[in-house]
Amino acid sequence: MVTADLKTGTPNIAEPLARYAPYRRAGDFIFLSGIIAVDPASGLIVKGFDDIGPDTAALIGRTGEFSVDIKQGPILAQSWYVLDRIRRTVESLGGRMSDVQRLVQYFRNLDHFPCYSSVRRLFFPDLAPASTVVQVSAMLPTDDIVIEVEATVYLPLGTPV
Amino acid sequence: MVTADLKTGTPNIAEPLARYAPYRRAGDFIFLSGIIAVDPASGLIVKGFDDIGPDTAALIGRTGEFSVDIKQGPILAQSWYVLDRIRRTVESLGGRMSDVQRLVQYFRNLDHFPCYSSVRRLFFPDLAPASTVVQVSAMLPTDDIVIEVEATVYLPLGTPV
Amino acid sequence: MVTADLKTGTPNIAEPLARYAPYRRAGDFIFLSGIIAVDPASGLIVKGFDDIGPDTAALIGRTGEFSVDIKQGPILAQSWYVLDRIRRTVESLGGRMSDVQRLVQYFRNLDHFPCYSSVRRLFFPDLAPASTVVQVSAMLPTDDIVIEVEATVYLPLGTPV
Amino acid sequence: MVTADLKTGTPNIAEPLARYAPYRRAGDFIFLSGIIAVDPASGLIVKGFDDIGPDTAALIGRTGEFSVDIKQGPILAQSWYVLDRIRRTVESLGGRMSDVQRLVQYFRNLDHFPCYSSVRRLFFPDLAPASTVVQVSAMLPTDDIVIEVEATVYLPLGTPV
Amino acid sequence: MVTADLKTGTPNIAEPLARYAPYRRAGDFIFLSGIIAVDPASGLIVKGFDDIGPDTAALIGRTGEFSVDIKQGPILAQSWYVLDRIRRTVESLGGRMSDVQRLVQYFRNLDHFPCYSSVRRLFFPDLAPASTVVQVSAMLPTDDIVIEVEATVYLPLGTPV
Amino acid sequence: MVTADLKTGTPNIAEPLARYAPYRRAGDFIFLSGIIAVDPASGLIVKGFDDIGPDTAALIGRTGEFSVDIKQGPILAQSWYVLDRIRRTVESLGGRMSDVQRLVQYFRNLDHFPCYSSVRRLFFPDLAPASTVVQVSAMLPTDDIVIEVEATVYLPLGTPV
Amino acid sequence: MVTADLKTGTPNIAEPLARYAPYRRAGDFIFLSGIIAVDPASGLIVKGFDDIGPDTAALIGRTGEFSVDIKQGPILAQSWYVLDRIRRTVESLGGRMSDVQRLVQYFRNLDHFPCYSSVRRLFFPDLAPASTVVQVSAMLPTDDIVIEVEATVYLPLGTPV
Amino acid sequence: MVTADLKTGTPNIAEPLARYAPYRRAGDFIFLSGIIAVDPASGLIVKGFDDIGPDTAALIGRTGEFSVDIKQGPILAQSWYVLDRIRRTVESLGGRMSDVQRLVQYFRNLDHFPCYSSVRRLFFPDLAPASTVVQVSAMLPTDDIVIEVEATVYLPLGTPV
Amino acid sequence: MVTADLKTGTPNIAEPLARYAPYRRAGDFIFLSGIIAVDPASGLIVKGFDDIGPDTAALIGRTGEFSVDIKQGPILAQSWYVLDRIRRTVESLGGRMSDVQRLVQYFRNLDHFPCYSSVRRLFFPDLAPASTVVQVSAMLPTDDIVIEVEATVYLPLGTPV
Amino acid sequence: MVTADLKTGTPNIAEPLARYAPYRRAGDFIFLSGIIAVDPASGLIVKGFDDIGPDTAALIGRTGEFSVDIKQGPILAQSWYVLDRIRRTVESLGGRMSDVQRLVQYFRNLDHFPCYSSVRRLFFPDLAPASTVVQVSAMLPTDDIVIEVEATVYLPLGTPV
Amino acid sequence: MVTADLKTGTPNIAEPLARYAPYRRAGDFIFLSGIIAVDPASGLIVKGFDDIGPDTAALIGRTGEFSVDIKQGPILAQSWYVLDRIRRTVESLGGRMSDVQRLVQYFRNLDHFPCYSSVRRLFFPDLAPASTVVQVSAMLPTDDIVIEVEATVYLPLGTPV
Amino acid sequence: MVTADLKTGTPNIAEPLARYAPYRRAGDFIFLSGIIAVDPASGLIVKGFDDIGPDTAALIGRTGEFSVDIKQGPILAQSWYVLDRIRRTVESLGGRMSDVQRLVQYFRNLDHFPCYSSVRRLFFPDLAPASTVVQVSAMLPTDDIVIEVEATVYLPLGTPV
Repeated sequence: MVTADLKTGTPNIAEPLARYAPYRRAGDFIFLSGIIAVDPASGLIVKGFDDIGPDTAALIGRTGEFSVDIKQGPILAQSWYVLDRIRRTVESLGGRMSDVQRLVQYFRNLDHFPCYSSVRRLFFPDLAPASTVVQVSAMLPTDDIVIEVEATVYLPLGTPV
Repeated sequence: MVTADLKTGTPNIAEPLARYAPYRRAGDFIFLSGIIAVDPASGLIVKGFDDIGPDTAALIGRTGEFSVDIKQGPILAQSWYVLDRIRRTVESLGGRMSDVQRLVQYFRNLDHFPCYSSVRRLFFPDLAPASTVVQVSAMLPTDDIVIEVEATVYLPLGTPV
Repeated sequence: MVTADLKTGTPNIAEPLARYAPYRRAGDFIFLSGIIAVDPASGLIVKGFDDIGPDTAALIGRTGEFSVDIKQGPILAQSWYVLDRIRRTVESLGGRMSDVQRLVQYFRNLDHFPCYSSVRRLFFPDLAPASTVVQVSAMLPTDDIVIEVEATVYLPLGTPV
Repeated sequence: MVTADLKTGTPNIAEPLARYAPYRRAGDFIFLSGIIAVDPASGLIVKGFDDIGPDTAALIGRTGEFSVDIKQGPILAQSWYVLDRIRRTVESLGGRMSDVQRLVQYFRNLDHFPCYSSVRRLFFPDLAPASTVVQVSAMLPTDDIVIEVEATVYLPLGTPV
Repeated sequence: MVTADLKTGTPNIAEPLARYAPYRRAGDFIFLSGIIAVDPASGLIVKGFDDIGPDTAALIGRTGEFSVDIKQGPILAQSWYVLDRIRRTVESLGGRMSDVQRLVQYFRNLDHFPCYSSVRRLFFPDLAPASTVVQVSAMLPTDDIVIEVEATVYLPLGTPV
Repeated sequence: MVTADLKTGTPNIAEPLARYAPYRRAGDFIFLSGIIAVDPASGLIVKGFDDIGPDTAALIGRTGEFSVDIKQGPILAQSWYVLDRIRRTVESLGGRMSDVQRLVQYFRNLDHFPCYSSVRRLFFPDLAPASTVVQVSAMLPTDDIVIEVEATVYLPLGTPV
Repeated sequence: MVTADLKTGTPNIAEPLARYAPYRRAGDFIFLSGIIAVDPASGLIVKGFDDIGPDTAALIGRTGEFSVDIKQGPILAQSWYVLDRIRRTVESLGGRMSDVQRLVQYFRNLDHFPCYSSVRRLFFPDLAPASTVVQVSAMLPTDDIVIEVEATVYLPLGTPV
Repeated sequence: MVTADLKTGTPNIAEPLARYAPYRRAGDFIFLSGIIAVDPASGLIVKGFDDIGPDTAALIGRTGEFSVDIKQGPILAQSWYVLDRIRRTVESLGGRMSDVQRLVQYFRNLDHFPCYSSVRRLFFPDLAPASTVVQVSAMLPTDDIVIEVEATVYLPLGTPV
Repeated sequence: MVTADLKTGTPNIAEPLARYAPYRRAGDFIFLSGIIAVDPASGLIVKGFDDIGPDTAALIGRTGEFSVDIKQGPILAQSWYVLDRIRRTVESLGGRMSDVQRLVQYFRNLDHFPCYSSVRRLFFPDLAPASTVVQVSAMLPTDDIVIEVEATVYLPLGTPV
Repeated sequence: MVTADLKTGTPNIAEPLARYAPYRRAGDFIFLSGIIAVDPASGLIVKGFDDIGPDTAALIGRTGEFSVDIKQGPILAQSWYVLDRIRRTVESLGGRMSDVQRLVQYFRNLDHFPCYSSVRRLFFPDLAPASTVVQVSAMLPTDDIVIEVEATVYLPLGTPV
Repeated sequence: MVTADLKTGTPNIAEPLARYAPYRRAGDFIFLSGIIAVDPASGLIVKGFDDIGPDTAALIGRTGEFSVDIKQGPILAQSWYVLDRIRRTVESLGGRMSDVQRLVQYFRNLDHFPCYSSVRRLFFPDLAPASTVVQVSAMLPTDDIVIEVEATVYLPLGTPV
Repeated sequence: MVTADLKTGTPNIAEPLARYAPYRRAGDFIFLSGIIAVDPASGLIVKGFDDIGPDTAALIGRTGEFSVDIKQGPILAQSWYVLDRIRRTVESLGGRMSDVQRLVQYFRNLDHFPCYSSVRRLFFPDLAPASTVVQVSAMLPTDDIVIEVEATVYLPLGTPV
């Protein structure tokens, strides 16, 4: 089962890189900050398969072919890291990925979309949430970042976990 | 009356181009995916007046002057198509365009804003919803796309149609 | 105290530059349009410290060193103007800055982020709302604009002011 | 009637910006210099609706929507100014716009053509003269200039006014 | 004889793509609008040998070698189309190509000049008219256009055909 | 007297670089081809002061300061060469520079305009003809060419020389 | 079995697009021309999944997700087409893919390498031949071409088929 | 006499735009900061002839021809302003321009060198000091600045004025 | 007969521009180094028709029209020079052009392919060898080089000449 | 007191990265080589706050906000390192920062000036020396370098320390 | 003796970075894959002198001058690594560098050729093999790679070692 | 001995290319103008080894390998020429290269630094003077110039030669 494997990895929820809230609950909604693939504790940027552990790397498509993995590693690993942090945040609040209702996905290069889409399918085996996808010219903190995802979650207060 | 004319056209609601939901209801809110001017069934991209039928073309500003229409056709036709699909989606859920509360409008070239604005006025004869407008460097699926619009709708459950 | 000083300045709330609503209330939420630093009445764009009054300029970091101020003036002044207009709008509705739950911040150049962040801290002395930050290629109305901020506010109906 | 309104405005005929003739009569023909939208007396460049008076601005398409007008203002106002100066020159010689036989129209950006065409129609309610349209990389005196028009007029000597 | 072959092809004279005259007679002179290779009836742009018929294609240099023809096709076919429409216009007025006195030839890429020159020789087996050649950055209606030619004809009234 | 000095130099009139007429008389008008600074006999391009003789160089502004002359030489020398060839052509037909009615001046870089203007004043001590000035991206035959001028002359038949 | 499926498709061997040999046998070696994905008979360029038949498209990775397939279609389909034509050529000469000893692979964008590599594995289930991979700036005939492959085959004369 | 005219103008010596010394005396030498054409009191940048007074403008080459002056105005006026401020500083210390021993001249565009050189000659009617000239990509405070000059002066202590 | 004319010209075989072999025989094969159009003795680069003698120039397409020849001269002359040096090398080894089995042709600009192809036909009146054509960004020694060709020859040892 | 804190850090004076003197005394003057932020012993480039120790980082403006520090770290840390090495060199010669008379400051991006200026103020609490500031396109050894400073010091021989 | 020194270093032969053969023997020929400077075991890219050991670095030109070595290190070290891996591969097959008959050398920047050539001389003290040199826009796996070399070896079967 | 060989060559000292002093003595210091490799008498620019004589060319690194020398020739020859002119100037004043205390070296491309450094070592066999090295975007007089050096010399008056 995919979800189990996905639970391995770094234990933190989505911590922001600056002085803003990682998420905010407003009534029944939870607004997550835009997430990028940087470990908030160490400040290390996820740059490829080596930064996410071998099991996850295998799960999301590492081929073992050097020239292939160096090309697809950044977007596959960042996609996984970002979605996994969204998952951890939602779960820490008592929800599940299916409670995510809306995603805004910012890319540095839309040619990365097929890789991202293959990873997103692991997190949303059924239909993904309402989605917006655009290519922007840069994100924080550096040019190593290739994807940022903002999520909106609906988790009515009093929902039994 | 404008609305009547606008009801002609392709009958589909906003279907996504990938494995994500065209919209999601979360409590009293409906989040629509970012819409671009591609027919989900055929995969055809709306490139100009010829792709939307003569009545609609006339309505949104076809002049019959070749060099004028080839310049303004893409943004006018895509603007209409995108807003019309938002309208169809909202109406299919029992709402109206006035229930749209928020629009994020992504352009490839902000010089297109005057044309878009003239079309938007047809759909929102009164004041348009709260709006954000930015220019991004690319959208899915190809460079033919010049506008993408994400809408947030407020349609309380139990609202009598 | 910072808030008192911030209350000086232009008295208007966030008025849009085109035919759309400055904000929309939908249930307990208020969606503000993306705000840029243009005075809606005069159409004047905030280009630097001279456009916001000396007290505010001093508050947000004018050094009096010509070459420094001409570099940092545009982003500091626009950051202040945009956040101040969000504040005025929220307050006119009976809320406070802490009711802002979500910010999407569009930059023309992310090297401006440190300046923006220093101003945002004045408006959110504690943790800022959930935040998304991206760099886009242009905004309305002209290239003088270096930042646009879209805010989502949670202000339940019947909240005592 | 359009012509009457067009007669308001700056009273000068086409004066050149350098040491060359504003026009030359050669037999039955009059060759006008290429006209750009600069007031020869003040050296001021027409940059938008504010430089041409409110009536003319309304006539040629000012919408009152700030972001629209700031985008379309330069080309609409310059188009009007240039054609109006051609009109004044021709009329000062006893002719009318219908005596203009040939126009060479230089643009900085051919996406401006639809706006120019809508203004030209006011000056040539019937068919415009023989026309050539190209996009060049710059014109005198500065980059604010977005259009230059050269006109050739046929006005046989002895034509009764 | 070349002329006979050239007479085959599309039957129309130079019709403009917008609301301006295809040509204007002024005394003994005829000013043609700048001509580009677009069929005014259908709005189709001449993009290569396939758009002009096999006999004409062979006449102006189709080699049958795929990679060669795809490179030279656009400029050769457009050159032929433009000059042929000038010829048709002049002949419809009772003149001949030798009555063309002046040509202004706008290119998108002056490396195309050798191909254009070889086609022009077919229309002017003797010396071509007074000629000006420049490279501009764009023409109407789209970037598929690689050449535009403006002609001035001298055809005294009362010339016996 | 300037004119006398200008008569020295290369003796040829404006010969074209390709198979087109250097000029065409049409009734009372003479259309010159666009002239560039290439010697038609040798195919040598005028690149600076050394290509036009020391007297002419001094006349048009050689300073003797190496770095100045290498910057201004190309435009000054080409401007002189082009206008001088127009002069020779007109004089060979029995006219004078004052018979030139219209000039279209194509530049590669409009920053060259002041230099060109200073040379043009030598040829037109009074007011220059009706003038159009634009910057284009290239001219024939090579990138060494920085200016091209097309002239229209009015010289009624039977004018006594 | 993959090979069987690959045998469907267009029946032609590698025919060149110009006047050169599709291949040359020299002693025991066969040199193939660089192959690109253009049908030599029709001149049609393979631009995506629709040009290669549904079975092949499925085999090489069509996902059915519109935005994914429009991104990966060109390189996947061209990779298949090019390698399949190499296979057909080799087989027509009595050889097999394992007789291919050397491949030079030219890309327009090396980010396409992972897709190409996944297709190449279908043709070389074991180790692929000695390989060189570089990114070049263009290939014949047009910019739609994203890959070209040159193969060297060793097929000793007298080899029993 | 030139010097007399040059003494008119703004009275200030070279004041820096930031927190650094306008000059420093070190033994018999005086090191001036790099000077740019900004009035230190008002922060106004010298952008053309209008910013320096009509007499100075005439002295340094204003032609009265609009298109010429708008091209040459910035470099001529800034050259004059910068050198004049150097002169004022030196004179305030009891020296003269002939005491300037070394100049480093930074340009934004070396095509401006001829204009600068003509102004420099006014300040150094004999030979100018030892000079270094390079083109850099930017200077403080904004892109309006086209020249910066750093001077080293030799003025032995105890020199009688 | 073409071959006879081609034998005139510079007498040297393909000498390399650096310390590598002009060719290497390996068994029955001869590998030629990539050839560019530089005379190895003088180091002169073939830049146009003037560098290859009038008969050859006429043979490969000099038109005598200045602007045409200056455009096509570099690629036509270099193509001839490169292929002729291949021919000389092969003949010096006792072979003929038909013994060339494989060509890799590197261009700086693939728009040059039609000219190259017309010259190649002179050397290979029947079908040319197996060919690969790509556009690269530079070659040795300078940017004047527009084509480089690498040839592989099959010339079994003991072949009677 | 600032100076005390600044004395911590790497102990070396300004050692050059190549075979040139770190400084030269000439009479009463000391000319320092242009200094960049590279440790001469290890060859490590100062890239951010982590390379200069936490106390110094805090002193010059580390905020602890990840996205802010990653943006401002390189210029703040390099500014400190460069000025500190100048200080060490001067002090090793028996002088103080107030003996520095002249600074030439080369930036890669003048938007860094405000950060540099804030650090310079720590080293020159009073007025900084005579200063020249320009933006250049590159410095040694790599693109990680964003600032280089050349200092001239006046330290008369025999000055009591 | 050079060869002895060269034998030190990493012990592996040329292993590919993807699923293709490092070389293929075909009859008497051996085709090597294009080699780049990446260690196949570790995936580490050779970026400079530090990656190849001090003796080799000294041999190929390390100067000890920091700014020189950081500029020349990448091309010198990669050139050595690539040629050394070719040598190891050939020797592992019983051959020598003189058995290499043909080299195709791809550069990212041909200004690197002098450095490469100096290293190649160490491996081919006499004449190097037949050589082709071009500059391409990218190679696998990343932009750190500045050279790729493809070799063809002739090593007849049964050759005594 | 190197110095002896260096004394051959052109006999002139550093003469400026414009109306400024080649050097200025100020007290014990001599300030040289920035030197570039242009012969002041002839105005010829040193472009490679052929412009400096064979002995000098050999001394500074001509390899005789055409493609190597054409790449390294410009920087090596200009470096030698510039430093040699500095040497001649200093020697003409009674000094030696060791009296040069400070060098500012401007490059067009810092990849040239290794070549320059190898030449500089010939002129400064021991440690070179205090040095600043930056890359600028252009120098006088043309783009052929790749290096400019400004020298400051300390040569106390009364120094015995």
